Amino acid sequence: RPSMAMRQAMAQAEVGDDDYGEDPTVNELQRLAAQLLGMEEALFVPTSTMANLIAVMCHCQRRGAQLLVGREAHLHVFEQGGVAQVAGVHSQVLQDLPDGTLDLNELESRVRVGYGSRYHPHSVLICLENTHSSAGGRVLPLAYLREVRLLADRYRLRVHMDGARLMNAAVAQGVSPAQITQHCDSISLCFSKGLGAPAGALVAGCREFVAEAWRIRKLLGGGMRQAGVLAAAARIGLEHMEETLQRDHRNARRFAQGIWELGSPICSVDPSAVETNMVLVTVAVPWLSPEKLCERMQAVSEEEVAETGRAVSVRLFPWAAHSLRAVWHCDVSAQDTQLAANKLKFVAEQCWWERGAAP
Amino acid sequence: RPSMAMRQAMAQAEVGDDDYGEDPTVNELQRLAAQLLGMEEALFVPTSTMANLIAVMCHCQRRGAQLLVGREAHLHVFEQGGVAQVAGVHSQVLQDLPDGTLDLNELESRVRVGYGSRYHPHSVLICLENTHSSAGGRVLPLAYLREVRLLADRYRLRVHMDGARLMNAAVAQGVSPAQITQHCDSISLCFSKGLGAPAGALVAGCREFVAEAWRIRKLLGGGMRQAGVLAAAARIGLEHMEETLQRDHRNARRFAQGIWELGSPICSVDPSAVETNMVLVTVAVPWLSPEKLCERMQAVSEEEVAETGRAVSVRLFPWAAHSLRAVWHCDVSAQDTQLAANKLKFVAEQCWWERGAAP
Amino acid sequence: RPSMAMRQAMAQAEVGDDDYGEDPTVNELQRLAAQLLGMEEALFVPTSTMANLIAVMCHCQRRGAQLLVGREAHLHVFEQGGVAQVAGVHSQVLQDLPDGTLDLNELESRVRVGYGSRYHPHSVLICLENTHSSAGGRVLPLAYLREVRLLADRYRLRVHMDGARLMNAAVAQGVSPAQITQHCDSISLCFSKGLGAPAGALVAGCREFVAEAWRIRKLLGGGMRQAGVLAAAARIGLEHMEETLQRDHRNARRFAQGIWELGSPICSVDPSAVETNMVLVTVAVPWLSPEKLCERMQAVSEEEVAETGRAVSVRLFPWAAHSLRAVWHCDVSAQDTQLAANKLKFVAEQCWWERGAAP
Amino acid sequence: RPSMAMRQAMAQAEVGDDDYGEDPTVNELQRLAAQLLGMEEALFVPTSTMANLIAVMCHCQRRGAQLLVGREAHLHVFEQGGVAQVAGVHSQVLQDLPDGTLDLNELESRVRVGYGSRYHPHSVLICLENTHSSAGGRVLPLAYLREVRLLADRYRLRVHMDGARLMNAAVAQGVSPAQITQHCDSISLCFSKGLGAPAGALVAGCREFVAEAWRIRKLLGGGMRQAGVLAAAARIGLEHMEETLQRDHRNARRFAQGIWELGSPICSVDPSAVETNMVLVTVAVPWLSPEKLCERMQAVSEEEVAETGRAVSVRLFPWAAHSLRAVWHCDVSAQDTQLAANKLKFVAEQCWWERGAAP
Repeated sequence: RPSMAMRQAMAQAEVGDDDYGEDPTVNELQRLAAQLLGMEEALFVPTSTMANLIAVMCHCQRRGAQLLVGREAHLHVFEQGGVAQVAGVHSQVLQDLPDGTLDLNELESRVRVGYGSRYHPHSVLICLENTHSSAGGRVLPLAYLREVRLLADRYRLRVHMDGARLMNAAVAQGVSPAQITQHCDSISLCFSKGLGAPAGALVAGCREFVAEAWRIRKLLGGGMRQAGVLAAAARIGLEHMEETLQRDHRNARRFAQGIWELGSPICSVDPSAVETNMVLVTVAVPWLSPEKLCERMQAVSEEEVAETGRAVSVRLFPWAAHSLRAVWHCDVSAQDTQLAANKLKFVAEQCWWERGAAP
Repeated sequence: RPSMAMRQAMAQAEVGDDDYGEDPTVNELQRLAAQLLGMEEALFVPTSTMANLIAVMCHCQRRGAQLLVGREAHLHVFEQGGVAQVAGVHSQVLQDLPDGTLDLNELESRVRVGYGSRYHPHSVLICLENTHSSAGGRVLPLAYLREVRLLADRYRLRVHMDGARLMNAAVAQGVSPAQITQHCDSISLCFSKGLGAPAGALVAGCREFVAEAWRIRKLLGGGMRQAGVLAAAARIGLEHMEETLQRDHRNARRFAQGIWELGSPICSVDPSAVETNMVLVTVAVPWLSPEKLCERMQAVSEEEVAETGRAVSVRLFPWAAHSLRAVWHCDVSAQDTQLAANKLKFVAEQCWWERGAAP
Repeated sequence: RPSMAMRQAMAQAEVGDDDYGEDPTVNELQRLAAQLLGMEEALFVPTSTMANLIAVMCHCQRRGAQLLVGREAHLHVFEQGGVAQVAGVHSQVLQDLPDGTLDLNELESRVRVGYGSRYHPHSVLICLENTHSSAGGRVLPLAYLREVRLLADRYRLRVHMDGARLMNAAVAQGVSPAQITQHCDSISLCFSKGLGAPAGALVAGCREFVAEAWRIRKLLGGGMRQAGVLAAAARIGLEHMEETLQRDHRNARRFAQGIWELGSPICSVDPSAVETNMVLVTVAVPWLSPEKLCERMQAVSEEEVAETGRAVSVRLFPWAAHSLRAVWHCDVSAQDTQLAANKLKFVAEQCWWERGAAP
Repeated sequence: RPSMAMRQAMAQAEVGDDDYGEDPTVNELQRLAAQLLGMEEALFVPTSTMANLIAVMCHCQRRGAQLLVGREAHLHVFEQGGVAQVAGVHSQVLQDLPDGTLDLNELESRVRVGYGSRYHPHSVLICLENTHSSAGGRVLPLAYLREVRLLADRYRLRVHMDGARLMNAAVAQGVSPAQITQHCDSISLCFSKGLGAPAGALVAGCREFVAEAWRIRKLLGGGMRQAGVLAAAARIGLEHMEETLQRDHRNARRFAQGIWELGSPICSVDPSAVETNMVLVTVAVPWLSPEKLCERMQAVSEEEVAETGRAVSVRLFPWAAHSLRAVWHCDVSAQDTQLAANKLKFVAEQCWWERGAAP
């Protein structure tokens, strides 16, 4: 939820009609973000879903375009298939590796270039996600990005990075965002995830790309008038991201460490895979579903209050068949993290005991 | 620009994650708006362009759908052809009449219904615009809406109203918005035009329609997280619309009256066509383009200061080949209106004089 | 229906796999047609609907494209709205004049060029139809085509001609097809209308255009393997077109002349508007619908046999609210034409008499 | 290439305007095929690419539809991405198993049903390919089809079978086509592959499905007028398919057996995987690419003539990184097959020898 500083910024933001490019707060945010990302220009949009869709539509102008994307990518799984449905772009889907990268040999083997090939859609764009959400917030290694860039250049492909959580990657790697985005032609960024702003995202690239992005934003209905009220909060998010995200990552690591030390037969984590603000918790027994465990974490029982003296409700998300996901954001403190770890300990023990009691 | 009350409301808004339907301020706005519009449900979206696109996509589900729309409609002219480009819907275009209505006989003759006709796209949707922007803010008569509804029912068509300025129509007709929208299946509404909020619009219809609209909003990237900050300002706009719009309409009428009384050989207006917050000014001489006149109205000259003791800059918009458009919104006072009329008088005289001087 | 010569040609055609460009009969037809049309290359496709759709898709590559087209054009009315539905292209629709042309001033006023205009779809293509079917087979004047070309060049637009009946225009004007198509960037041509082949059409343009057309044909599923069997018949049609179409036009004129001389109070024609192989017959009385008259022309009554000694069934098509259309093709002889005129005389008199008898 | 019987049938076919459903030869073919396939109705179309595209467009009417398909399927790889580009349908891609089937557990895990899930595209259709071309003409087991049907019913999905080579599957399994297609909602069939007709395909399903397919065929430009000339040849293909395909399969098996017995260190085949009219030949050495080997098989050298007394040119197709594909059709005799096997022996030995000579 927006901080006091953000709310104040929104209330005082100088605004204008962004539909005519006249909102000074939006313009300033775009300028700052472009600089931070090492891109020529940036465009403020309502959501990162729209940012990604715009990027795909801008890069894939010619009919018959194909994009290469990991099958677990947010763009492929969660965004309603907009790349096909709205953009008319065919997806060549690859299997993501556990660390969020794609196998470069497989990637290369799936490239179909040139309008010379008259039977295949032609590869135009590679979409990466950084940090990779489905992989549990994994950070794409810079060396890997360099390899992808080289491959893309070899076949004259463009690279778009779904950077909804790009800042988490930058903070985790201790590099400037531009060191990451130097390997990309375009990047999307979300202000309402880790950065804590109420809404807004942006898409950045070269001048020509952003000019076209402006048109597509209008087409999709994302061109708000006095968007400065949102941009003001987004800017605060950007300014404080380093400390916010550092803390989120620290909390996530502590939580993971705590669960690992628990040594519970019911749930486990791999602390070495926790690179940013997410923890994937594996449910290690077949008789407990991730859905059930999430439910127990959210519910507050009388026994819990009696036993621990506290009523703690924790919101986790079922992830895959045998795992759930915990995400840290600016409203979760170190103390909250400790309470959540305690609760998971309590619930795990309770589940184990119940199972023992009712074999 | 947002009022102090709006800014304060944004700063204090109770928010939640609207992507999960958990933002109380958004929910409350949607509930209020649905009630006001006499629709089952409403959905908050970033812009009225998106609201219209969503409506078309929801109504036109089956392949081969065709919509019937006036050729001067905002939806047809200004929204980047999204109905074709994004929604894949063919437009059967009709000639709007000067009062913003469509000829009902022509409308009927263009309907192609039933998948039985195997050669034509099939008519599914009629799109109206109220108030009709290109016609100069004209209000669609209720009797006309009733006729359109009957025609639509006869052929089982849906009716969508682009109601970006619906509230102007309701205020001008002295009826509740629901008396207008009773003839429609869906309606869009804009908060950032006459209502003065910084951003946001909504689309309303039956429960099933809005459930689908939710999906399409997500697809297009319009599902913002803590949209409550925008909804809070929108609500203030809704609450004060009656007085705001009454004043705008009054000012527009006064301006038109003033220009009419001027009897200038250069520019004229038809006061009887001024029904809401717009005035179309006709440029009556071939040697002065609307673009040029708008420029003169915006510029401030030394002569103006010398002669009138004031420096007034007025922003008008070139409209058609021989007309320009003046629009009133919440930041334009009665006094501003008087100053604008004076400026137009000054500029018209100046132009006339220059022309005489340099034949 | 295909002539004996066509059937024989089909049976003996040398064929190959056109999906690999290896069908000699197709290649030869494409070469001949390109030459005849003065275009660099031509591509054989199943239908002229596909030829038009391919042309639109090839010309309108970039997102946000708009085409300018007459509202009565076949492309706009009859082809299921494929330009929007499949190609995602927005149509700016103009009112066709009675002679099948568009008003050039209106055309120019509707052009929106440049991606600089960030709110409108951008005009890319003008679509003409020649001969113009809805106007009753009217031939577009060469001077008009030159004007359209100049206008197009001024705004850097492309011109596509739906030339399903182009050969009728060439024969009627006594010019080579290339004299017509010199004003166009692309042209479609139908073999199964006036030319009498069982199926097939083609689309022609510059080399680059046809390379892209090849891909789009494949995409739409129009790339048949041994298309040479159809191409062989099409070629016969092409070789005999002059005599075939001359005869059709002569017959149409005679029929029109006959009806005109009839001076019936029920139906009339304008012989001066009969330029090719179509005649529009106006039904001049409100109590007889075109549908009804078509029915009577097709049915054979005992009275007819008794009175005229013949049983003649004529297939006409209801056209607009008060007119029907007669079309000549290779299977309709001069004698058939005479019989049809006689039948219309008989039916008209019968209708008149019945009406008188039952007031 | 079309047989004499087919050419004769084309020359004598009774035809009519299929655009009005009046071509008796087309109607008869559609009736026969529907019966053979156990479907209510069938529709003749120019190509199986169009048949598949039509099926996807008919099944996926509602916005946000997703299809599940194997990543090596012809529909996904070779048809220019038409499902996304034209139909706007998102593909959830699965890994095909070596025998052409999909893993049913993985298939089930990828299903997203119900418009209730508001973030994912919703699964609507499963696309199978039978025989599976990329897998080397593998036949889908009937038990597998039954399982897919049950899974589809569980989630209310439709099943479309790309049956371009369905008849090969039926002949190989010794069952009627209807025993295969009973598990599908729709089926496409190609006349110009194994059945030897010059062009044409069809798509079949329930009455409602085919009515919609008619519209989509028109939209895509596949509605030819006197299609009877093609349908006549297609029918001959259908009538003789059993003997034609039996022979093809026998020849393919013999070829595979011959290569296997060769025991060449350069190329190998798995005879047990040869179920129909295709043989995948694996190139077993890294220094010879499939492209190179195909080239050598097609070229005729003086040495070959000198050594074998024959000049044989064989057209094979590079398939994957280390394999090539041989396909049998009606123009390849048993003797041709023997000659091709001999040629491969000759080329393999020559390659081996050259490599030895120039290490």
